[in-house]
Amino acid sequence: MSASPIGPELQRLIDLLAKMPGLGPRSAKRAALYLLKKREPVMRPLAFALDDAANKVTGCSICGNWDSMDPCAVCADETRQSGVLCVVQDVADLWALERAGAHKGRYHVLGGLLSPLDGVGPDDLDIGGLIARAKEDTITEVVLALAATVDGQTTAHYLTEHLETSNVSVTRLSQGVPVGGELDYLDEGTLSAAMKARRPV
Amino acid sequence: MSASPIGPELQRLIDLLAKMPGLGPRSAKRAALYLLKKREPVMRPLAFALDDAANKVTGCSICGNWDSMDPCAVCADETRQSGVLCVVQDVADLWALERAGAHKGRYHVLGGLLSPLDGVGPDDLDIGGLIARAKEDTITEVVLALAATVDGQTTAHYLTEHLETSNVSVTRLSQGVPVGGELDYLDEGTLSAAMKARRPV
Repeated sequence: MSASPIGPELQRLIDLLAKMPGLGPRSAKRAALYLLKKREPVMRPLAFALDDAANKVTGCSICGNWDSMDPCAVCADETRQSGVLCVVQDVADLWALERAGAHKGRYHVLGGLLSPLDGVGPDDLDIGGLIARAKEDTITEVVLALAATVDGQTTAHYLTEHLETSNVSVTRLSQGVPVGGELDYLDEGTLSAAMKARRPV
Repeated sequence: MSASPIGPELQRLIDLLAKMPGLGPRSAKRAALYLLKKREPVMRPLAFALDDAANKVTGCSICGNWDSMDPCAVCADETRQSGVLCVVQDVADLWALERAGAHKGRYHVLGGLLSPLDGVGPDDLDIGGLIARAKEDTITEVVLALAATVDGQTTAHYLTEHLETSNVSVTRLSQGVPVGGELDYLDEGTLSAAMKARRPV
């Protein structure tokens, strides 16, 4: 084999890009070539933005959201309802609910789901913080906005048990036919759940 | 609408990530969250690698390959055959041929393909450099390793005409059945080309 056509600086950049979710070794090369062509408009600003965010963005000490201020913008927003606390697995889910405008109250980010098989126990998640917040007088309802998976249900079950001593009602997201979804393409579990949870028109 | 849950530093990072090929707005968010979790092992090194590559990597003045040295590692490699010059559209194609170990000679990166519809003319590509190199005594063959598309064929035709005055043989990559490809799934154009170019076993 002759020498690699890719120099060490470029190879290191490609290796790091390839670690990002959504990029593999081949698309990382494509991304690196794209960035080299867009040095001033994208590559240098991206280097700065990465460094800047790495320095400034921290987890909110109240809810666990990522933000450059602490408390985060959501926790600091006085106009939000303070009575309803929405529990999510991850910051991505918080952003998804915000994008949908689906929740006007507060959030709590667990940082994962209980998963006995993967060795994730209660101490690995911010469950203590949630229980403490649920005991606050302002909180009247805790919405468990967790994935409809085995781990999500395990976590929901565990949280429901441990929130019993708090004076809050515990709810969860409804399950059913996705908006725009055709019945023909839905799995049987979703169809059964939607039928069981049917509501008057 | 209440304030965005995503702060300005993070939003700028997401916007820049979303410009990369292979990442859209949603996967850019996912990438940003991943990076924030991997600050020391990935995020800061990536910021440094981007800046470092932006400063050090330049186009090779001979062939157009991207490298941190000029001439690039391929042009500087004395062990490579100097008689065969392989013309590619882009650096990505050079890397692909090197990965395959398909070419042991020199390269010339055009920087694109002729595309009258997109307004890409001969002056937008490094065709002058190619013609000049093809006139060098050491070069005996120019291989046109261009895409099997209309633009690729247009470019190959143009280059073949303009290389006639040079004392080189001009060749192109063969077309046919991809290795591992099943006939049933191949388009008719490829099948016809493979049949026309059939060879004795």
